[in-house]
Amino acid sequence: MRTEDDFFADLFRRLPAFPAAVVIPPGDDCAAITWGENRLLLLAVDQVVGDRHYVSRGDQATPPRLAGRKLLARNLSDIAAMGGTPTLCLLAGAFAKDRDEAWLREFYDGIIALAAEYGVSMVGGDFAATPHDDVASLTILGEVAADQVIRRSGARPGDQLFATGCFGDSFASQHHLLFTPRCAEGQWLAQRHLARAMMDVSDGLLRDAARICAASHVGLTLDLDAVPRRGRATLEQACGDGEDFELIFAVPPERVPSLTTGWPFADTPLTRLGEFTAAAGLWDPAGRPLAVAGWDHFAF
Amino acid sequence: MRTEDDFFADLFRRLPAFPAAVVIPPGDDCAAITWGENRLLLLAVDQVVGDRHYVSRGDQATPPRLAGRKLLARNLSDIAAMGGTPTLCLLAGAFAKDRDEAWLREFYDGIIALAAEYGVSMVGGDFAATPHDDVASLTILGEVAADQVIRRSGARPGDQLFATGCFGDSFASQHHLLFTPRCAEGQWLAQRHLARAMMDVSDGLLRDAARICAASHVGLTLDLDAVPRRGRATLEQACGDGEDFELIFAVPPERVPSLTTGWPFADTPLTRLGEFTAAAGLWDPAGRPLAVAGWDHFAF
Repeated sequence: MRTEDDFFADLFRRLPAFPAAVVIPPGDDCAAITWGENRLLLLAVDQVVGDRHYVSRGDQATPPRLAGRKLLARNLSDIAAMGGTPTLCLLAGAFAKDRDEAWLREFYDGIIALAAEYGVSMVGGDFAATPHDDVASLTILGEVAADQVIRRSGARPGDQLFATGCFGDSFASQHHLLFTPRCAEGQWLAQRHLARAMMDVSDGLLRDAARICAASHVGLTLDLDAVPRRGRATLEQACGDGEDFELIFAVPPERVPSLTTGWPFADTPLTRLGEFTAAAGLWDPAGRPLAVAGWDHFAF
Repeated sequence: MRTEDDFFADLFRRLPAFPAAVVIPPGDDCAAITWGENRLLLLAVDQVVGDRHYVSRGDQATPPRLAGRKLLARNLSDIAAMGGTPTLCLLAGAFAKDRDEAWLREFYDGIIALAAEYGVSMVGGDFAATPHDDVASLTILGEVAADQVIRRSGARPGDQLFATGCFGDSFASQHHLLFTPRCAEGQWLAQRHLARAMMDVSDGLLRDAARICAASHVGLTLDLDAVPRRGRATLEQACGDGEDFELIFAVPPERVPSLTTGWPFADTPLTRLGEFTAAAGLWDPAGRPLAVAGWDHFAF
Protein backbone atom coordinates (compact mmCIF):
# COMPACT_ATOMS: atom_id res chain seq x y z
CA MET A 1 0.00 0.00 0.00
CA ARG A 2 1.26 3.44 -0.83
CA THR A 3 1.58 6.23 1.68
CA GLU A 4 -0.98 8.91 2.33
CA ASP A 5 1.27 11.45 0.60
CA ASP A 6 1.43 9.32 -2.55
CA PHE A 7 -2.27 8.61 -2.54
CA PHE A 8 -3.20 12.26 -2.21
CA ALA A 9 -0.64 13.41 -4.74
CA ASP A 10 -2.25 11.04 -7.23
CA LEU A 11 -5.74 12.07 -6.17
CA PHE A 12 -5.13 15.77 -6.62
CA ARG A 13 -3.69 15.15 -10.08
CA ARG A 14 -7.06 13.68 -11.09
CA LEU A 15 -9.07 16.60 -9.70
CA PRO A 16 -10.19 19.63 -11.73
CA ALA A 17 -7.87 22.64 -11.72
CA PHE A 18 -8.21 25.05 -8.83
CA PRO A 19 -10.06 28.32 -9.28
CA ALA A 20 -8.03 31.51 -8.98
CA ALA A 21 -9.34 32.12 -5.46
CA VAL A 22 -7.34 29.13 -4.20
CA VAL A 23 -3.99 30.77 -3.48
CA ILE A 24 -2.58 27.89 -1.42
CA PRO A 25 -3.63 24.51 -2.80
CA PRO A 26 -3.70 21.31 -0.74
CA GLY A 27 -0.32 20.05 0.41
CA ASP A 28 0.35 22.61 3.13
CA ASP A 29 -1.03 22.37 6.67
CA CYS A 30 -3.99 24.39 5.41
CA ALA A 31 -5.28 25.41 2.02
CA ALA A 32 -6.02 29.12 1.62
CA ILE A 33 -8.44 31.12 -0.47
CA THR A 34 -8.65 34.88 -0.98
CA TRP A 35 -10.79 36.62 1.60
CA GLY A 36 -11.08 40.34 0.95
CA GLU A 37 -8.19 42.79 0.78
CA ASN A 38 -4.91 41.15 1.90
CA ARG A 39 -6.74 38.45 3.90
CA LEU A 40 -6.73 34.71 3.39
CA LEU A 41 -9.25 32.18 4.61
CA LEU A 42 -7.44 29.08 5.86
CA LEU A 43 -9.08 25.64 5.57
CA ALA A 44 -8.08 22.24 6.90
CA VAL A 45 -9.70 19.01 8.05
CA ASP A 46 -8.49 16.38 10.49
CA GLN A 47 -10.08 13.47 12.30
CA VAL A 48 -9.83 11.19 15.31
CA VAL A 49 -10.58 7.47 15.08
CA GLY A 50 -11.50 5.38 18.12
CA ASP A 51 -8.66 3.10 19.26
CA ARG A 52 -6.35 4.85 16.87
CA HIS A 53 -6.12 8.40 18.19
CA TYR A 54 -7.49 7.60 21.63
CA VAL A 55 -8.30 4.50 23.66
CA SER A 56 -11.92 3.71 23.02
CA ARG A 57 -12.93 1.36 25.83
CA GLY A 58 -11.81 -0.53 28.92
CA ASP A 59 -9.89 0.47 32.00
CA GLN A 60 -7.48 2.60 30.01
CA ALA A 61 -10.22 4.35 28.01
CA THR A 62 -9.44 7.95 27.20
CA PRO A 63 -11.90 10.32 28.90
CA PRO A 64 -14.24 11.42 26.09
CA ARG A 65 -13.58 15.04 27.01
CA LEU A 66 -9.92 14.58 26.07
CA ALA A 67 -10.77 12.72 22.87
CA GLY A 68 -12.96 15.64 21.80
CA ARG A 69 -10.34 18.14 22.89
CA LYS A 70 -7.73 16.36 20.79
CA LEU A 71 -9.87 16.56 17.67
CA LEU A 72 -10.08 20.35 17.80
CA ALA A 73 -6.50 20.75 19.06
CA ARG A 74 -5.11 18.87 16.03
CA ASN A 75 -6.92 21.26 13.76
CA LEU A 76 -5.87 24.35 15.71
CA SER A 77 -2.29 23.17 15.26
CA ASP A 78 -2.77 23.23 11.47
CA ILE A 79 -3.93 26.85 11.63
CA ALA A 80 -0.99 27.67 13.91
CA ALA A 81 1.39 26.20 11.35
CA MET A 82 0.30 28.84 8.79
CA GLY A 83 0.61 31.71 11.27
CA GLY A 84 -3.18 32.04 11.32
CA THR A 85 -5.98 32.72 13.77
CA PRO A 86 -8.67 30.03 14.02
CA THR A 87 -12.24 31.30 13.67
CA LEU A 88 -14.85 28.66 12.81
CA CYS A 89 -15.28 24.90 12.67
CA LEU A 90 -17.66 22.21 11.45
CA LEU A 91 -17.87 18.80 13.09
CA ALA A 92 -18.99 15.46 11.68
CA GLY A 93 -19.27 12.81 14.35
CA ALA A 94 -20.05 9.13 13.79
CA PHE A 95 -20.16 7.48 17.18
CA ALA A 96 -20.45 3.86 18.30
CA LYS A 97 -24.15 3.22 18.75
CA ASP A 98 -23.72 2.23 22.40
CA ARG A 99 -22.20 5.57 23.40
CA ASP A 100 -24.59 7.08 25.90
CA GLU A 101 -25.59 10.69 26.11
CA ALA A 102 -23.17 11.39 28.98
CA TRP A 103 -20.26 10.15 26.86
CA LEU A 104 -21.35 12.19 23.87
CA ARG A 105 -21.91 15.28 25.94
CA GLU A 106 -18.41 14.97 27.42
CA PHE A 107 -16.86 14.48 23.99
CA TYR A 108 -18.53 17.64 22.73
CA ASP A 109 -17.74 19.55 25.91
CA GLY A 110 -14.06 18.80 25.38
CA ILE A 111 -14.34 20.51 22.01
CA ILE A 112 -16.44 23.37 23.35
CA ALA A 113 -14.06 24.25 26.18
CA LEU A 114 -11.06 24.46 23.86
CA ALA A 115 -13.12 26.28 21.21
CA ALA A 116 -14.05 28.93 23.78
CA GLU A 117 -10.40 29.30 24.80
CA TYR A 118 -9.31 29.87 21.20
CA GLY A 119 -12.33 31.93 20.13
CA VAL A 120 -13.62 29.34 17.66
CA SER A 121 -17.33 29.09 16.80
CA MET A 122 -18.94 25.88 15.59
CA VAL A 123 -21.08 26.62 12.54
CA GLY A 124 -22.09 23.17 11.42
CA GLY A 125 -22.37 19.57 12.43
CA ASP A 126 -23.55 16.16 11.43
CA PHE A 127 -24.20 13.30 13.76
CA ALA A 128 -24.47 9.59 12.98
CA ALA A 129 -24.18 6.25 14.74
CA THR A 130 -21.82 3.47 13.70
CA PRO A 131 -22.02 -0.26 14.40
CA HIS A 132 -18.48 -0.39 15.81
CA ASP A 133 -16.37 2.55 16.89
CA ASP A 134 -16.16 6.32 16.67
CA VAL A 135 -14.84 8.46 13.84
CA ALA A 136 -15.10 12.22 14.22
CA SER A 137 -13.77 14.78 11.79
CA LEU A 138 -13.49 18.51 12.16
CA THR A 139 -13.02 21.15 9.50
CA ILE A 140 -11.32 24.28 10.76
CA LEU A 141 -11.40 27.75 9.25
CA GLY A 142 -9.00 30.51 10.12
CA GLU A 143 -7.64 33.74 8.80
CA VAL A 144 -4.27 35.32 8.20
CA ALA A 145 -2.94 38.38 6.41
CA ALA A 146 -1.90 37.39 2.88
CA ASP A 147 1.55 38.95 3.35
CA GLN A 148 2.09 37.08 6.63
CA VAL A 149 1.01 33.53 5.82
CA ILE A 150 3.81 30.98 6.26
CA ARG A 151 3.94 28.00 3.92
CA ARG A 152 6.14 24.92 3.89
CA SER A 153 7.86 25.95 0.70
CA GLY A 154 9.82 29.07 1.67
CA ALA A 155 12.94 27.65 3.32
CA ARG A 156 16.26 28.60 1.71
CA PRO A 157 19.77 27.22 2.15
CA GLY A 158 21.35 28.84 5.20
CA ASP A 159 18.03 29.30 7.02
CA GLN A 160 18.09 27.96 10.56
CA LEU A 161 15.60 25.31 11.67
CA PHE A 162 13.93 26.10 14.98
CA ALA A 163 11.29 24.23 16.94
CA THR A 164 8.88 24.94 19.75
CA GLY A 165 8.54 22.50 22.64
CA CYS A 166 9.78 18.94 23.04
CA PHE A 167 9.53 15.75 21.04
CA GLY A 168 8.75 12.07 21.53
CA ASP A 169 6.77 9.94 23.97
CA SER A 170 3.57 11.75 23.12
CA PHE A 171 1.27 8.78 23.67
CA ALA A 172 2.64 7.45 26.97
CA SER A 173 2.88 10.96 28.43
CA GLN A 174 -0.65 11.89 27.28
CA HIS A 175 0.85 14.89 25.51
CA HIS A 176 -1.17 13.89 22.43
CA LEU A 177 -4.33 14.63 24.43
CA LEU A 178 -3.20 17.60 26.47
CA PHE A 179 -0.95 19.61 24.16
CA THR A 180 -1.39 23.34 23.70
CA PRO A 181 -1.79 24.28 20.01
CA ARG A 182 0.89 26.84 19.18
CA CYS A 183 -1.43 29.46 17.69
CA ALA A 184 0.03 32.38 19.64
CA GLU A 185 3.57 31.37 18.70
CA GLY A 186 2.63 30.91 15.03
CA GLN A 187 0.93 34.30 14.87
CA TRP A 188 3.84 36.00 16.59
CA LEU A 189 6.27 34.55 14.05
CA ALA A 190 4.01 35.45 11.13
CA GLN A 191 3.37 39.03 12.19
CA ARG A 192 7.12 39.68 12.51
CA HIS A 193 8.08 37.83 9.32
CA LEU A 194 10.51 35.72 11.35
CA ALA A 195 9.85 32.41 9.59
CA ARG A 196 10.09 31.68 5.88
CA ALA A 197 8.62 28.17 6.13
CA MET A 198 6.71 26.40 8.87
CA MET A 199 4.66 23.32 9.66
CA ASP A 200 3.44 21.44 12.69
CA VAL A 201 4.95 18.07 13.61
CA SER A 202 2.26 15.41 13.60
CA ASP A 203 3.90 12.50 11.80
CA GLY A 204 7.37 12.63 13.38
CA LEU A 205 10.09 15.26 13.49
CA LEU A 206 12.28 13.77 10.75
CA ARG A 207 9.43 12.93 8.45
CA ASP A 208 7.87 16.38 8.76
CA ALA A 209 11.23 18.15 8.49
CA ALA A 210 11.71 16.20 5.27
CA ARG A 211 8.38 17.56 4.05
CA ILE A 212 9.55 21.16 4.53
CA CYS A 213 12.72 20.24 2.64
CA ALA A 214 10.77 18.66 -0.22
CA ALA A 215 8.36 21.60 -0.48
CA SER A 216 11.23 24.10 -0.36
CA HIS A 217 13.63 22.14 -2.62
CA VAL A 218 16.35 22.24 0.01
CA GLY A 219 18.09 19.80 2.35
CA LEU A 220 18.71 19.96 6.09
CA THR A 221 21.57 19.30 8.46
CA LEU A 222 19.90 18.28 11.68
CA ASP A 223 21.72 18.56 14.99
CA LEU A 224 20.35 15.41 16.62
CA ASP A 225 21.93 16.19 19.98
CA ALA A 226 19.92 19.39 20.13
CA VAL A 227 16.50 17.75 19.75
CA PRO A 228 14.66 18.45 23.02
CA ARG A 229 13.08 15.24 24.29
CA ARG A 230 9.91 14.89 26.27
CA GLY A 231 10.31 13.00 29.54
CA ARG A 232 12.05 9.69 28.95
CA ALA A 233 11.85 9.74 25.18
CA THR A 234 14.80 8.22 23.34
CA LEU A 235 16.31 10.10 20.43
CA GLU A 236 14.61 7.66 18.08
CA GLN A 237 11.24 8.35 19.69
CA ALA A 238 11.83 12.10 19.61
CA CYS A 239 12.63 11.93 15.90
CA GLY A 240 9.96 9.46 14.86
CA ASP A 241 7.02 9.16 17.22
CA GLY A 242 4.86 11.96 15.92
CA GLU A 243 1.81 13.60 17.51
CA ASP A 244 4.08 16.27 18.99
CA PHE A 245 2.06 19.15 17.52
CA GLU A 246 5.01 21.48 17.85
CA LEU A 247 5.99 24.04 15.21
CA ILE A 248 9.18 23.67 13.19
CA PHE A 249 10.20 26.64 11.08
CA ALA A 250 12.93 28.11 8.92
CA VAL A 251 14.43 31.37 10.14
CA PRO A 252 16.61 33.54 7.85
CA PRO A 253 20.04 33.77 9.53
CA GLU A 254 19.87 37.55 9.88
CA ARG A 255 16.55 37.22 11.75
CA VAL A 256 17.81 34.75 14.35
CA PRO A 257 18.79 37.42 16.91
CA SER A 258 15.32 39.03 16.69
CA LEU A 259 13.78 35.62 17.22
CA THR A 260 15.86 34.49 20.15
CA THR A 261 15.96 37.78 22.00
CA GLY A 262 12.32 38.68 21.31
CA TRP A 263 10.67 35.29 21.99
CA PRO A 264 7.99 36.20 24.55
CA PHE A 265 6.68 32.72 25.35
CA ALA A 266 8.37 31.84 28.62
CA ASP A 267 6.58 28.49 28.85
CA THR A 268 7.38 27.40 25.31
CA PRO A 269 10.92 26.12 24.74
CA LEU A 270 12.57 27.45 21.58
CA THR A 271 15.39 25.36 20.16
CA ARG A 272 17.66 25.61 17.14
CA LEU A 273 17.72 22.19 15.49
CA GLY A 274 19.78 22.65 12.34
CA GLU A 275 20.44 24.45 9.09
CA PHE A 276 18.88 24.13 5.67
CA THR A 277 21.25 23.24 2.86
CA ALA A 278 21.33 23.46 -0.91
CA ALA A 279 21.98 19.70 -1.11
CA ALA A 280 18.75 17.72 -0.87
CA GLY A 281 18.26 15.18 1.90
CA LEU A 282 18.52 15.07 5.68
CA TRP A 283 22.02 14.93 7.14
CA ASP A 284 23.63 14.70 10.53
CA PRO A 285 26.32 17.28 11.43
CA ALA A 286 29.02 14.83 10.28
CA GLY A 287 27.44 14.72 6.84
CA ARG A 288 25.91 11.25 7.13
CA PRO A 289 22.41 10.75 5.70
CA LEU A 290 19.56 10.34 8.19
CA ALA A 291 16.96 7.65 7.56
CA VAL A 292 13.49 9.15 7.75
CA ALA A 293 11.12 6.97 9.71
CA GLY A 294 7.73 8.32 10.59
CA TRP A 295 4.24 7.53 11.47
CA ASP A 296 2.13 7.41 8.37
CA HIS A 297 -1.53 8.25 8.66
CA PHE A 298 -2.45 5.59 6.23
CA ALA A 299 -0.13 2.62 6.36
CA PHE A 300 -0.63 1.43 9.93
CA MET B 1 -32.05 8.88 23.52
CA ARG B 2 -32.92 12.31 22.27
CA THR B 3 -33.01 13.22 18.61
CA GLU B 4 -30.23 14.80 16.63
CA ASP B 5 -32.16 18.07 16.58
CA ASP B 6 -32.43 18.10 20.39
CA PHE B 7 -28.82 17.15 20.88
CA PHE B 8 -27.54 19.87 18.58
CA ALA B 9 -29.91 22.50 19.96
CA ASP B 10 -28.47 21.79 23.39
CA LEU B 11 -24.93 21.72 22.02
CA PHE B 12 -25.19 25.05 20.31
CA ARG B 13 -26.57 26.64 23.47
CA ARG B 14 -23.34 25.67 25.24
CA LEU B 15 -21.10 27.11 22.52
CA PRO B 16 -19.64 30.62 22.54
CA ALA B 17 -21.66 33.33 20.77
CA PHE B 18 -21.18 33.66 17.04
CA PRO B 19 -19.01 36.44 15.65
CA ALA B 20 -20.76 39.08 13.54
CA ALA B 21 -19.50 37.49 10.34
CA VAL B 22 -21.80 34.51 10.91
CA VAL B 23 -25.01 35.78 9.29
CA ILE B 24 -26.74 32.38 9.17
CA PRO B 25 -25.97 30.27 12.24
CA PRO B 26 -26.25 26.47 12.33
CA GLY B 27 -29.76 25.11 11.98
CA ASP B 28 -30.29 25.74 8.28
CA ASP B 29 -29.03 23.45 5.52
CA CYS B 30 -25.86 25.54 5.52
CA ALA B 31 -24.38 28.17 7.78
CA ALA B 32 -23.29 31.37 6.06
CA ILE B 33 -20.64 33.97 6.74
CA THR B 34 -20.06 37.30 5.05
CA TRP B 35 -17.85 37.09 2.00
CA GLY B 36 -17.20 40.50 0.47
CA GLU B 37 -19.84 42.88 -0.85
CA ASN B 38 -23.30 41.22 -0.94
CA ARG B 39 -21.78 37.71 -1.04
CA LEU B 40 -22.13 34.91 1.47
CA LEU B 41 -19.88 31.91 1.95
CA LEU B 42 -22.01 28.82 2.63
CA LEU B 43 -20.68 26.01 4.83
CA ALA B 44 -22.03 22.55 5.60
CA VAL B 45 -20.75 19.10 6.51
CA ASP B 46 -22.27 15.69 5.92
CA GLN B 47 -21.01 12.13 6.10
CA VAL B 48 -21.56 8.59 4.90
CA VAL B 49 -21.15 5.59 7.19
CA GLY B 50 -20.53 2.08 5.86
CA ASP B 51 -23.61 -0.18 6.13
CA ARG B 52 -25.67 2.79 7.04
CA HIS B 53 -25.61 5.03 3.98
CA TYR B 54 -24.42 2.31 1.61
CA VAL B 55 -23.96 -1.46 1.68
CA SER B 56 -20.42 -2.09 2.78
CA ARG B 57 -19.71 -5.70 1.79
CA GLY B 58 -21.09 -8.87 0.26
CA ASP B 59 -23.00 -9.61 -2.92
CA GLN B 60 -25.13 -6.51 -2.53
CA ALA B 61 -22.20 -4.21 -1.76
CA THR B 62 -22.59 -0.71 -3.14
CA PRO B 63 -20.00 0.06 -5.81
CA PRO B 64 -17.47 2.33 -4.05
CA ARG B 65 -17.82 4.85 -6.86
CA LEU B 66 -21.48 5.33 -5.92
CA ALA B 67 -20.72 5.52 -2.20
CA GLY B 68 -18.24 8.31 -2.90
CA ARG B 69 -20.63 10.01 -5.27
CA LYS B 70 -23.33 9.97 -2.60
CA LEU B 71 -21.09 11.68 -0.07
CA LEU B 72 -20.55 14.71 -2.30
CA ALA B 73 -24.10 14.66 -3.66
CA ARG B 74 -25.58 14.94 -0.15
CA ASN B 75 -23.49 18.02 0.44
CA LEU B 76 -24.31 19.57 -2.93
CA SER B 77 -27.96 19.18 -1.99
CA ASP B 78 -27.36 21.30 1.12
CA ILE B 79 -25.87 24.08 -1.01
CA ALA B 80 -28.81 23.74 -3.44
CA ALA B 81 -31.23 24.21 -0.54
CA MET B 82 -29.83 27.70 0.12
CA GLY B 83 -29.95 28.71 -3.56
CA GLY B 84 -26.15 28.60 -3.68
CA THR B 85 -23.37 27.53 -6.00
CA PRO B 86 -20.93 24.93 -4.64
CA THR B 87 -17.26 25.83 -4.96
CA LEU B 88 -14.86 23.90 -2.70
CA CYS B 89 -14.78 20.85 -0.47
CA LEU B 90 -12.63 19.08 2.13
CA LEU B 91 -12.80 15.35 2.69
CA ALA B 92 -11.95 13.29 5.76
CA GLY B 93 -11.99 9.58 5.04
CA ALA B 94 -11.54 6.79 7.59
CA PHE B 95 -11.69 3.52 5.71
CA ALA B 96 -11.77 -0.10 6.82
CA LYS B 97 -8.17 -1.25 6.92
CA ASP B 98 -8.79 -4.07 4.44
CA ARG B 99 -10.01 -1.74 1.67
CA ASP B 100 -7.56 -2.13 -1.17
CA GLU B 101 -6.24 0.63 -3.33
CA ALA B 102 -8.68 -0.17 -6.17
CA TRP B 103 -11.63 0.27 -3.80
CA LEU B 104 -10.27 3.53 -2.43
CA ARG B 105 -9.49 4.86 -5.87
CA GLU B 106 -13.04 4.11 -7.02
CA PHE B 107 -14.53 5.77 -3.95
CA TYR B 108 -12.53 8.93 -4.63
CA ASP B 109 -13.23 8.78 -8.35
CA GLY B 110 -16.95 8.80 -7.60
CA ILE B 111 -16.42 12.08 -5.77
CA ILE B 112 -14.10 13.48 -8.41
CA ALA B 113 -16.47 12.83 -11.31
CA LEU B 114 -19.36 14.60 -9.59
CA ALA B 115 -17.07 17.39 -8.37
CA ALA B 116 -15.97 18.03 -11.95
CA GLU B 117 -19.60 18.11 -13.10
CA TYR B 118 -20.52 20.71 -10.46
CA GLY B 119 -17.29 22.72 -10.67
CA VAL B 120 -16.17 21.86 -7.14
CA SER B 121 -12.48 21.79 -6.18
CA MET B 122 -11.14 19.68 -3.33
CA VAL B 123 -8.85 21.79 -1.15
CA GLY B 124 -8.14 19.49 1.75
CA GLY B 125 -8.22 15.94 2.93
CA ASP B 126 -7.33 13.58 5.70
CA PHE B 127 -7.03 9.87 5.39
CA ALA B 128 -7.08 7.22 8.11
CA ALA B 129 -7.74 3.51 8.52
CA THR B 130 -10.32 2.01 10.88
CA PRO B 131 -10.46 -1.46 12.39
CA HIS B 132 -14.04 -2.03 11.21
CA ASP B 133 -15.90 -0.02 8.61
CA ASP B 134 -15.75 3.24 6.68
CA VAL B 135 -16.78 6.70 7.79
CA ALA B 136 -16.19 9.56 5.38
CA SER B 137 -17.20 13.16 5.90
CA LEU B 138 -17.15 16.03 3.49
CA THR B 139 -17.29 19.74 4.21
CA ILE B 140 -18.73 21.78 1.35
CA LEU B 141 -18.28 25.48 0.67
CA GLY B 142 -20.45 27.47 -1.67
CA GLU B 143 -21.46 31.01 -2.43
CA VAL B 144 -24.64 32.95 -2.92
CA ALA B 145 -25.66 36.60 -3.17
CA ALA B 146 -26.67 37.86 0.26
CA ASP B 147 -29.98 39.19 -1.08
CA GLN B 148 -30.79 35.87 -2.74
CA VAL B 149 -30.01 33.30 -0.07
CA ILE B 150 -33.04 31.21 0.92
CA ARG B 151 -33.37 30.06 4.52
CA ARG B 152 -35.85 27.76 6.22
CA SER B 153 -37.37 30.55 8.22
CA GLY B 154 -39.06 32.76 5.63
CA ALA B 155 -42.36 30.96 4.98
CA ARG B 156 -45.54 32.95 5.69
CA PRO B 157 -49.17 31.90 6.00
CA GLY B 158 -50.68 31.67 2.53
CA ASP B 159 -47.40 30.72 0.86
CA GLN B 160 -47.67 27.63 -1.31
CA LEU B 161 -45.46 24.61 -0.69
CA PHE B 162 -43.83 23.26 -3.83
CA ALA B 163 -41.43 20.36 -4.33
CA THR B 164 -39.07 19.14 -7.00
CA GLY B 165 -39.04 15.47 -8.02
CA CYS B 166 -40.61 12.45 -6.37
CA PHE B 167 -40.57 10.92 -2.92
CA GLY B 168 -40.15 7.54 -1.25
CA ASP B 169 -38.47 4.24 -2.02
CA SER B 170 -35.09 5.92 -2.25
CA PHE B 171 -33.09 2.94 -0.97
CA ALA B 172 -34.66 0.14 -3.01
CA SER B 173 -34.62 2.23 -6.18
CA GLN B 174 -30.98 3.31 -5.65
CA HIS B 175 -32.16 6.91 -5.92
CA HIS B 176 -30.14 7.62 -2.75
CA LEU B 177 -27.00 6.82 -4.74
CA LEU B 178 -27.90 8.23 -8.14
CA PHE B 179 -29.89 11.39 -7.41
CA THR B 180 -29.09 14.67 -9.09
CA PRO B 181 -28.50 17.45 -6.56
CA ARG B 182 -30.90 20.29 -7.37
CA CYS B 183 -28.32 23.06 -7.56
CA ALA B 184 -29.56 24.50 -10.85
CA GLU B 185 -33.15 24.55 -9.60
CA GLY B 186 -32.16 26.14 -6.28
CA GLN B 187 -30.12 28.84 -8.00
CA TRP B 188 -32.92 29.57 -10.46
CA LEU B 189 -35.41 30.01 -7.61
CA ALA B 190 -32.99 32.18 -5.62
CA GLN B 191 -32.05 34.47 -8.49
CA ARG B 192 -35.73 35.18 -9.22
CA HIS B 193 -36.77 35.52 -5.57
CA LEU B 194 -39.44 32.88 -6.13
CA ALA B 195 -39.05 31.08 -2.80
CA ARG B 196 -39.22 32.58 0.67
CA ALA B 197 -38.09 29.42 2.47
CA MET B 198 -36.42 26.25 1.25
CA MET B 199 -34.68 23.07 2.38
CA ASP B 200 -33.75 19.71 0.96
CA VAL B 201 -35.57 16.58 2.05
CA SER B 202 -33.16 14.14 3.60
CA ASP B 203 -35.01 12.90 6.69
CA GLY B 204 -38.49 12.44 5.23
CA LEU B 205 -40.97 14.82 3.59
CA LEU B 206 -43.19 15.32 6.62
CA ARG B 207 -40.36 15.66 9.07
CA ASP B 208 -38.50 18.16 6.93
CA ALA B 209 -41.67 20.09 6.07
CA ALA B 210 -42.25 20.33 9.82
CA ARG B 211 -38.76 21.82 10.15
CA ILE B 212 -39.61 24.62 7.70
CA CYS B 213 -42.79 25.22 9.71
CA ALA B 214 -40.89 25.34 13.01
CA ALA B 215 -38.23 27.68 11.64
CA SER B 216 -40.86 29.95 10.06
CA HIS B 217 -43.36 29.82 12.95
CA VAL B 218 -46.15 28.67 10.66
CA GLY B 219 -48.15 25.51 10.04
CA LEU B 220 -48.88 23.62 6.86
CA THR B 221 -51.85 22.01 5.18
CA LEU B 222 -50.38 19.20 3.12
CA ASP B 223 -52.29 17.74 0.18
CA LEU B 224 -51.25 14.12 0.64
CA ASP B 225 -52.84 13.02 -2.62
CA ALA B 226 -50.57 15.38 -4.49
CA VAL B 227 -47.29 13.93 -3.16
CA PRO B 228 -45.50 12.49 -6.21
CA ARG B 229 -44.28 9.00 -5.41
CA ARG B 230 -41.20 7.32 -6.78
CA GLY B 231 -41.88 3.96 -8.44
CA ARG B 232 -43.87 1.72 -6.13
CA ALA B 233 -43.56 3.87 -3.03
CA THR B 234 -46.58 3.92 -0.74
CA LEU B 235 -47.83 7.23 0.59
CA GLU B 236 -46.29 6.40 3.94
CA GLN B 237 -42.93 5.76 2.30
CA ALA B 238 -43.16 8.94 0.24
CA CYS B 239 -43.87 10.94 3.40
CA GLY B 240 -41.40 9.25 5.71
CA ASP B 241 -38.58 7.39 4.00
CA GLY B 242 -36.13 10.23 3.56
CA GLU B 243 -32.99 10.41 1.41
CA ASP B 244 -35.05 12.00 -1.37
CA PHE B 245 -32.72 15.00 -1.72
CA GLU B 246 -35.46 17.01 -3.37
CA LEU B 247 -36.11 20.69 -2.65
CA ILE B 248 -39.25 21.81 -0.86
CA PHE B 249 -39.96 25.54 -0.82
CA ALA B 250 -42.48 28.21 0.09
CA VAL B 251 -43.71 30.34 -2.80
CA PRO B 252 -45.61 33.60 -2.17
CA PRO B 253 -49.05 33.18 -3.77
CA GLU B 254 -48.56 36.07 -6.19
CA ARG B 255 -45.34 34.46 -7.47
CA VAL B 256 -46.89 31.07 -8.26
CA PRO B 257 -47.69 31.92 -11.91
CA SER B 258 -44.09 33.04 -12.53
CA LEU B 259 -42.88 29.80 -11.03
CA THR B 260 -45.15 27.41 -12.85
CA THR B 261 -45.00 29.10 -16.26
CA GLY B 262 -41.29 29.90 -16.07
CA TRP B 263 -39.96 26.57 -14.70
CA PRO B 264 -37.29 25.64 -17.26
CA PHE B 265 -36.33 22.21 -15.93
CA ALA B 266 -38.20 19.81 -18.20
CA ASP B 267 -36.73 16.76 -16.46
CA THR B 268 -37.51 17.92 -12.94
CA PRO B 269 -41.13 17.52 -11.84
CA LEU B 270 -42.54 20.53 -10.01
CA THR B 271 -45.53 19.87 -7.74
CA ARG B 272 -47.66 21.97 -5.45
CA LEU B 273 -47.99 20.09 -2.16
CA GLY B 274 -49.90 22.41 0.14
CA GLU B 275 -50.30 25.79 1.79
CA PHE B 276 -48.66 27.29 4.85
CA THR B 277 -51.03 28.35 7.62
CA ALA B 278 -50.97 30.65 10.60
CA ALA B 279 -51.95 27.72 12.85
CA ALA B 280 -48.94 25.65 13.86
CA GLY B 281 -48.74 21.96 13.02
CA LEU B 282 -49.12 19.79 9.94
CA TRP B 283 -52.67 19.18 8.72
CA ASP B 284 -54.39 17.24 5.99
CA PRO B 285 -56.86 19.10 3.73
CA ALA B 286 -59.74 17.96 5.98
CA GLY B 287 -58.10 19.66 8.95
CA ARG B 288 -56.87 16.51 10.67
CA PRO B 289 -53.39 16.57 12.23
CA LEU B 290 -50.66 14.59 10.48
CA ALA B 291 -48.33 12.49 12.57
CA VAL B 292 -44.73 13.29 11.68
CA ALA B 293 -42.63 10.18 11.32
CA GLY B 294 -39.16 10.53 9.98
CA TRP B 295 -35.80 9.04 9.77
CA ASP B 296 -33.58 10.42 12.44
CA HIS B 297 -29.89 10.60 11.82
CA PHE B 298 -29.08 9.59 15.31
CA ALA B 299 -31.68 7.29 16.79
CA PHE B 300 -31.44 4.30 14.45
